[in-house]
Amino acid sequence: MNQQYSSTLLERAVDEFSKLPGIGRKTALRLMLHLLKREETEVDALAESIVRLRHEVKHCKVCHNISDDEVCAICANKMRDDSIICVVENFQDVLAIEATTQFHGLYHVLGGVISPMDGISPADLEIQSLVDRVGKGGVEEVILALSSTMEGDTTNFVISRRLEAFPDLKLTVLARGISINDELQYTDEVTLGRSIVNRTPFKAS
Amino acid sequence: MNQQYSSTLLERAVDEFSKLPGIGRKTALRLMLHLLKREETEVDALAESIVRLRHEVKHCKVCHNISDDEVCAICANKMRDDSIICVVENFQDVLAIEATTQFHGLYHVLGGVISPMDGISPADLEIQSLVDRVGKGGVEEVILALSSTMEGDTTNFVISRRLEAFPDLKLTVLARGISINDELQYTDEVTLGRSIVNRTPFKAS
Repeated sequence: MNQQYSSTLLERAVDEFSKLPGIGRKTALRLMLHLLKREETEVDALAESIVRLRHEVKHCKVCHNISDDEVCAICANKMRDDSIICVVENFQDVLAIEATTQFHGLYHVLGGVISPMDGISPADLEIQSLVDRVGKGGVEEVILALSSTMEGDTTNFVISRRLEAFPDLKLTVLARGISINDELQYTDEVTLGRSIVNRTPFKAS
Repeated sequence: MNQQYSSTLLERAVDEFSKLPGIGRKTALRLMLHLLKREETEVDALAESIVRLRHEVKHCKVCHNISDDEVCAICANKMRDDSIICVVENFQDVLAIEATTQFHGLYHVLGGVISPMDGISPADLEIQSLVDRVGKGGVEEVILALSSTMEGDTTNFVISRRLEAFPDLKLTVLARGISINDELQYTDEVTLGRSIVNRTPFKAS
């Protein structure tokens, strides 16, 4: 069938919604029929929120975290310890570490890990900007908080090599309390919190 | 925590999305981070599709099905047999019956079934407009295709009473191949198709 529903408006909305990951056509239809029962203002607010998010959200120019402003709330917070930088893959990892309330330094969001299979090279990540941040001085410790996967380990290694130029810098990794091959963002808060407290000096193997 | 994320734009979009049924905050966050990686035009198209759906969609003035126009594509189709009207609860039931390809008449979408528990009385449903349609003449058969629940049976009974004014009208129900307490829209196509072919005369018990 070319057209499945009696309304092309509905057809189109279901098409668009089912492009989202994990949303099939049945779910999209259920959501659209739900929206049809809501107030127009509610639907407008939903639509506006995603348009504004996409058009107006920025990445912090210091740590590259998702932000409303040029500099994110964490980097702008004078109460945070700017001598420690925690290097993470993505925004969800910042959320996960913040939820532990064990870390009071700043972050550096790489935007991924090195993965030749996915065509992600060191140049695609915010590694140079990390080196630049450390180069400006005042940073005493860099915590490598990447997932304990092969890609994470490779990225740790590449970063450690780039930071060898700063011999006084303390380079640490999260304590191995996190099981191998686990994704950081799905680790429970207690384990993740403890692994920040028990972080250990980095040794390139 | 008052604010969970580093961006109020993200916070708001997640809030709005997690209002949808079956979408929690974790899923909403995952969807929003996905949208941040898409082109702006794609996100705009998604937003526009739901706004247009909510503002522009109509209900067919004949059968009350969801439609782009005053009269829906099924009612406007000259190839369909306008002497048979199939009465259903909602739009999904039209979809389910259309998917069987066994029915070539028209529909009448009630908008629900009588349910005192949910405060739905006969006056809240499109029952009078069904009687008016039959009253205009040309209708030979009305198929009652409601879910085989107590509410569906009650609604069948009320409709049959209202249609007693037309002694020549054939009143049928779907063949009882559908198991009791099953929702029509979740019935498999074969069973549903056979129950349309084997429809039987209605007897008020």
